[in-house]
Amino acid sequence: MSDNFVAFLMGSDSDFPVVEPGIQILKNLGIRCEVKVTSAHRTPDVTKSFVQDAEKRGCRVFICAAGLAAHLAGAVAAQTVCPVIGIPVDCGPFQGLDALLSTVQMPGGIPVATMAVGKAGAKNAAYLAAEILAVSDPALKEKLLADRKAGAEKVVAKDAALQARLNGAE
Amino acid sequence: MSDNFVAFLMGSDSDFPVVEPGIQILKNLGIRCEVKVTSAHRTPDVTKSFVQDAEKRGCRVFICAAGLAAHLAGAVAAQTVCPVIGIPVDCGPFQGLDALLSTVQMPGGIPVATMAVGKAGAKNAAYLAAEILAVSDPALKEKLLADRKAGAEKVVAKDAALQARLNGAE
Amino acid sequence: MSDNFVAFLMGSDSDFPVVEPGIQILKNLGIRCEVKVTSAHRTPDVTKSFVQDAEKRGCRVFICAAGLAAHLAGAVAAQTVCPVIGIPVDCGPFQGLDALLSTVQMPGGIPVATMAVGKAGAKNAAYLAAEILAVSDPALKEKLLADRKAGAEKVVAKDAALQARLNGAE
Amino acid sequence: MSDNFVAFLMGSDSDFPVVEPGIQILKNLGIRCEVKVTSAHRTPDVTKSFVQDAEKRGCRVFICAAGLAAHLAGAVAAQTVCPVIGIPVDCGPFQGLDALLSTVQMPGGIPVATMAVGKAGAKNAAYLAAEILAVSDPALKEKLLADRKAGAEKVVAKDAALQARLNGAE
Amino acid sequence: MSDNFVAFLMGSDSDFPVVEPGIQILKNLGIRCEVKVTSAHRTPDVTKSFVQDAEKRGCRVFICAAGLAAHLAGAVAAQTVCPVIGIPVDCGPFQGLDALLSTVQMPGGIPVATMAVGKAGAKNAAYLAAEILAVSDPALKEKLLADRKAGAEKVVAKDAALQARLNGAE
Amino acid sequence: MSDNFVAFLMGSDSDFPVVEPGIQILKNLGIRCEVKVTSAHRTPDVTKSFVQDAEKRGCRVFICAAGLAAHLAGAVAAQTVCPVIGIPVDCGPFQGLDALLSTVQMPGGIPVATMAVGKAGAKNAAYLAAEILAVSDPALKEKLLADRKAGAEKVVAKDAALQARLNGAE
Amino acid sequence: MSDNFVAFLMGSDSDFPVVEPGIQILKNLGIRCEVKVTSAHRTPDVTKSFVQDAEKRGCRVFICAAGLAAHLAGAVAAQTVCPVIGIPVDCGPFQGLDALLSTVQMPGGIPVATMAVGKAGAKNAAYLAAEILAVSDPALKEKLLADRKAGAEKVVAKDAALQARLNGAE
Amino acid sequence: MSDNFVAFLMGSDSDFPVVEPGIQILKNLGIRCEVKVTSAHRTPDVTKSFVQDAEKRGCRVFICAAGLAAHLAGAVAAQTVCPVIGIPVDCGPFQGLDALLSTVQMPGGIPVATMAVGKAGAKNAAYLAAEILAVSDPALKEKLLADRKAGAEKVVAKDAALQARLNGAE
Repeated sequence: MSDNFVAFLMGSDSDFPVVEPGIQILKNLGIRCEVKVTSAHRTPDVTKSFVQDAEKRGCRVFICAAGLAAHLAGAVAAQTVCPVIGIPVDCGPFQGLDALLSTVQMPGGIPVATMAVGKAGAKNAAYLAAEILAVSDPALKEKLLADRKAGAEKVVAKDAALQARLNGAE
Repeated sequence: MSDNFVAFLMGSDSDFPVVEPGIQILKNLGIRCEVKVTSAHRTPDVTKSFVQDAEKRGCRVFICAAGLAAHLAGAVAAQTVCPVIGIPVDCGPFQGLDALLSTVQMPGGIPVATMAVGKAGAKNAAYLAAEILAVSDPALKEKLLADRKAGAEKVVAKDAALQARLNGAE
Repeated sequence: MSDNFVAFLMGSDSDFPVVEPGIQILKNLGIRCEVKVTSAHRTPDVTKSFVQDAEKRGCRVFICAAGLAAHLAGAVAAQTVCPVIGIPVDCGPFQGLDALLSTVQMPGGIPVATMAVGKAGAKNAAYLAAEILAVSDPALKEKLLADRKAGAEKVVAKDAALQARLNGAE
Repeated sequence: MSDNFVAFLMGSDSDFPVVEPGIQILKNLGIRCEVKVTSAHRTPDVTKSFVQDAEKRGCRVFICAAGLAAHLAGAVAAQTVCPVIGIPVDCGPFQGLDALLSTVQMPGGIPVATMAVGKAGAKNAAYLAAEILAVSDPALKEKLLADRKAGAEKVVAKDAALQARLNGAE
Repeated sequence: MSDNFVAFLMGSDSDFPVVEPGIQILKNLGIRCEVKVTSAHRTPDVTKSFVQDAEKRGCRVFICAAGLAAHLAGAVAAQTVCPVIGIPVDCGPFQGLDALLSTVQMPGGIPVATMAVGKAGAKNAAYLAAEILAVSDPALKEKLLADRKAGAEKVVAKDAALQARLNGAE
Repeated sequence: MSDNFVAFLMGSDSDFPVVEPGIQILKNLGIRCEVKVTSAHRTPDVTKSFVQDAEKRGCRVFICAAGLAAHLAGAVAAQTVCPVIGIPVDCGPFQGLDALLSTVQMPGGIPVATMAVGKAGAKNAAYLAAEILAVSDPALKEKLLADRKAGAEKVVAKDAALQARLNGAE
Repeated sequence: MSDNFVAFLMGSDSDFPVVEPGIQILKNLGIRCEVKVTSAHRTPDVTKSFVQDAEKRGCRVFICAAGLAAHLAGAVAAQTVCPVIGIPVDCGPFQGLDALLSTVQMPGGIPVATMAVGKAGAKNAAYLAAEILAVSDPALKEKLLADRKAGAEKVVAKDAALQARLNGAE
Repeated sequence: MSDNFVAFLMGSDSDFPVVEPGIQILKNLGIRCEVKVTSAHRTPDVTKSFVQDAEKRGCRVFICAAGLAAHLAGAVAAQTVCPVIGIPVDCGPFQGLDALLSTVQMPGGIPVATMAVGKAGAKNAAYLAAEILAVSDPALKEKLLADRKAGAEKVVAKDAALQARLNGAE
């Protein structure tokens, strides 16, 4: 599966700080990733061409981040039967509620795997993409299990640090 | 302007009962109208072709009705600089709040003239389309003024009827 | 159509920073524009007179920006059959949800073309007004098509810049 | 204060079943009341004339019921410094949330005394109108105190009935 | 009516900056006003005693400001048939939506005249209290009409200033 | 602890069908329970007297069900330091969102243990009251553990029934 | 990949009518599927054992449907690095908004691929599961492409039927 | 009851500033308290072990604070019939609405006593835990009554201070 990659699309380059942690997670897991700024509304043809071309070049999962009336993930899902993951971005006065509903309430037949609004969602989009690739990649699954274990250990360590702080404070 | 028309798109034929009052209003005002079932997600290419072809054939205003993650109006607006009017349809558990936000929260540069959710919105989409065409069609403007006056008289008549009923009831 | 213009009303001069980008867009497109501070509640008679007078002087589209219980667009729409565009302003604790619902949920017969909340909506109000005027003004339509193309190219350029940055960062 | 009365305005005769309980309460309290169907948007001039005329004829409090983008109370409040009470009607897909926000979120200077959405609000609009008139009408205040006491006794009686039912059921 | 006054209650002294503009408006209109910090939950007996005592001493209207599960207005309304006005305060993470619903959704029989959330509501509470007292106080009504006229003139002046600025800017 | 009991208050006898499942659960667990219809707004003095008297007679936990601007639980919590449990009732157009926020958003110092909206909340109010009494009543804790186990077994049985149905259907 | 399967979990057998269309889609696509009623709260140990055991037996994707405080998908995701898909069920007074937020707003590290609320979501959960398996199963991908094409043709056919009906009606 | 204690769990150490006021209240009331960072999703087994172990060591009430899809309280409640109190934390773009609904909308049989969102909720969680323990601890009940009285006196003092300030300002 050496040429496989994940495509990370965003509707505007102002979304980059939100999605960056997800890109980093993919890198850490050794998953090749392409990043693309393209808009469902301003560049619909670029979006469509990119999706069709990327799929031919080995893209297996599309991740799309967008705010407001966030149509990017839906527009991509309309062009492919590869899994499409949507990250609602919390820009604008409704803080992502508009983006969440625009992303998640897809009609039957065209799924978008919707993540939490904002940075937590960007991280989880990367993890979900990895989990999807790991269905047929046992080595990647091992990496995910190790990462999950490390995440648990971090919580345990933070608990220990808090206990120490509280005991010292008494 | 004899070949001009308004295109009335809907994402699913189940939206037809919602948009029907709007179609009737266009007919009453003598405005030619084409109706089209096409989906932003299930038939993106049909949607794009229809918009480009309709515009060439004389379509001057597009009206788009859709529910849930209602992307149809946005997808049409991405293909034309004709005015695009969106009707959020109140299907699904959120009764149109999802469709409203998906339709109205368009990013700068790609406007969608959003109407009220459901039947009131379908009626007003027709009236707005007529108002747009009337900007350069004085005869149509006269019809709209007459219709507006008739609407006011209906309210006055309903008031008279209620007064009669209440006085009779005393 | 040389005397035609667009009227840009706002309920309070504190709304000016929100609507300013829209005024600039109209200027860039060469569309004459009048700006007016008037309130549906504090100066209802001024509002009514302005609408009636402006229409006589050549106003073809009204754009109304207001926050909270945003009645300005509806009050203007009640006085004219010219297209009326509403911009919900995101002031107050509900960040524009109140203004959005007060603007968009108009009863059948009196349409208000509602835009996104805040600055994105102000920009799109200007674009929609231009699209409406362009229905009978081919030269303006060409300008809009050029502007749309420039907008697409800006996205492509931002994508290129991001690719360069990411490649440089590796 | 013999010629004083309360005006009960509604935006549509379909609102009558919602406001009827309020009208009945005013009757029971011996308060003269006029009912009027008039719309802020469809008949703005009728609305304005009615308010100005009613005030001259002795109207002391205006009650306004409307649904959706409920502007009626605000439009009335813009024409008078008599107390204006607003009843948001729960029609349409948002069940009155739109009407509540359109009624209550008035800008500083033009108050609308907003009641609960729907029938509870219609009843309380009548009670508030009576409380306002009772500020300078001790006899009416006595009636309100008696009515309040009767309301309390009804709760006590319902409690007794439930206790009897539950004890009988054991 | 020389001993009449308006009582301005708030659930916490942290609400004072929100209600202060309302207190100032009452002063400007020459209406005597008492301010009281008392809580529906922390000092229910003080609240009850204050209401009963204030009413005996000439209080004609109660204004209550509270945030979160804002019960103060309802608790006061349960103790009097004087008009009670509620100001939902926008503290806490829900920015006053909780306070609005807790204040406005009163059951039939116990009205609370609800104002906009926050400072706009505090101002309007004062104006509504004045309008209520003006029902039987023609001199106060004249003051309110003058104030309303001054408010309109302020909007006109702001419009003139904006026109000047925009013309100068060209 | 033989005289201890749980008091089940409701703002209106129309809430009885909602709370009835909770009353039944208390009976099944052998916990004595008093039911009372009393309103925070219509009968504030009855509410206060009942709480004070019930506490003297052995009431250890108060459960309060109310809809709309649901103040009953808060009004009871203001009178006692016994645990108070609130059930938001889903009556009215907002289906309990108003009651939920009015019940849960209590200010610091006066807790109300808020349950889910409607019948699920009524059941859980009973279970929570039992859990509270079980803190010092080991026999009751055994009953709760048995009930919890039975609940789990019911899920397992339903799963078995579904498996059987699906296998039979094949 | 012959032993691979998709597990379809639901928190209550009352969710079965909601998820049934999704189960049917998996069958139509020839994907083996196990159905399980198990609750995150009532049978946490059964849930955990089932997940661990199913994964060993070849489960590659978990689909979890639950309403209210819908924790099932999150509880499953905490036990596996297989992709977990969540369907928020629209039971209870908030019609699935609670279930949507409880399912989608997962913290970083534990993704749940969230679908639309209710039946549309159940269908899309099945399609997403199929898309995930199709990443490494070209034959399944062909089936998905054929199904997508058939879905598009259904829209075209519905459009043709509507055109016929409208033309016949003229 | 000397070995009894209250366990204060939080999903992340970033929640500590929110819960700290609650921990302080328990200390002030002389109630022993253990603090634990553990996550329903990242460390489900640690969470389960801690609950079972803590209960054996004398824990009588569990308090759980979490944000976003806040499952911690539900996961704890699934493991014990001790009272479980939930504090929704207002992190993330929805400011705790997600956490509130994820915590409060528990299905019948597994109660979570839900508090207000954020710091007010953390304080009240401590007070409710104390009220629960005080059901069988008369000395603790006395402390709670004294604390409640002190809270009332603080309101009275704040009122006095405001009166002094306002009188001095005149």
